[in-house]
Amino acid sequence: MLLYDSQVSGNCYKVRLLLAQLGLDCERREIDVVDRSGRSELLGEINPALRVPTLVLDDGRALAESNAILWFLSLGTRYLPDESFERAKALQWMFFEQYSHEPNIAVLRYWLSIAAAAPPEPVVEARRRAGYEALDAMERELATREFLVAGRYTIADIALYAYTHVAEEGGFDLSRYPAIGRWLDRVAAQPGHKPITA
Amino acid sequence: MLLYDSQVSGNCYKVRLLLAQLGLDCERREIDVVDRSGRSELLGEINPALRVPTLVLDDGRALAESNAILWFLSLGTRYLPDESFERAKALQWMFFEQYSHEPNIAVLRYWLSIAAAAPPEPVVEARRRAGYEALDAMERELATREFLVAGRYTIADIALYAYTHVAEEGGFDLSRYPAIGRWLDRVAAQPGHKPITA
Repeated sequence: MLLYDSQVSGNCYKVRLLLAQLGLDCERREIDVVDRSGRSELLGEINPALRVPTLVLDDGRALAESNAILWFLSLGTRYLPDESFERAKALQWMFFEQYSHEPNIAVLRYWLSIAAAAPPEPVVEARRRAGYEALDAMERELATREFLVAGRYTIADIALYAYTHVAEEGGFDLSRYPAIGRWLDRVAAQPGHKPITA
Repeated sequence: MLLYDSQVSGNCYKVRLLLAQLGLDCERREIDVVDRSGRSELLGEINPALRVPTLVLDDGRALAESNAILWFLSLGTRYLPDESFERAKALQWMFFEQYSHEPNIAVLRYWLSIAAAAPPEPVVEARRRAGYEALDAMERELATREFLVAGRYTIADIALYAYTHVAEEGGFDLSRYPAIGRWLDRVAAQPGHKPITA
């Protein structure tokens, strides 16, 4: 398999983390996430959204969107819940991640720590507020459970871990969130875990 | 089943449309999408993101995020692709919808036609540009196929139809997109189709 990848991207890290935990090898091709020129030429044929991660299978079929890739790779493994409703709850958290969490927490990290070019303060502040709302929602859920779904570590945890564990690079204060803090430790202690920089 | 619903919400319409096509009955409780006060009291126990749609099953379990609900309701029906990779492609399009399409096309419709209170022009323009990029991606895909995935009408089409067919209420010019136009007609011609206002 070939992964169109970015070292700094949490969305790409999700895929690298699951691949490592599954013991699967994958060629990686690094794509620049700041200079986006040439994306159409690189990704136009395989991902209409022109984003990383994009995974090309050995038979040439391509799959995009980090959480769809997690889903596909986890089929038949313990990283996907077994039961239909629990699977749907995993999807609920993964859609929450892409709608409520990533656009705020990941984007602030990108503006402040990666591109080092932030928009005007009111725009940053709106994302900050929405990012804290997403963390509030996670904290409420994790106050009463060890993992997000199915009582065990699944792709829902991988999806939410990716940008939560580096939220401070976007200026978020995680010390306000003790349940999230304990969950981050539990995720990092899973067999086969690797850091975003690996 | 009980659906926490909003008549004007495309995310809620997705669920109502699939329920109708599956011939399933569902009680509906209308939630205000402009005045969001009281959301914690209404939805706090069943949806950490405090949004509609939220579906409560007859056994009391609750499921949120429109596309996760579509997934769950379509299990075992012809609206979900049969094959694993095609299912992952459906998820790819559904994550694309929530990340690239809804935050631009639905949000502009909300600002311009529902809340009637838009932010400053540069903010609107950024969403407009990103919304047209999402439509460009759909047009490229639909230029060579009748439906998004699996060669037939699936939950991926329902997810993308919901806000695309009312994109003009957000000021998007769909006449630039002939392949999308033909696809909208094909979706509206499916057995059991019902309009967003139904």
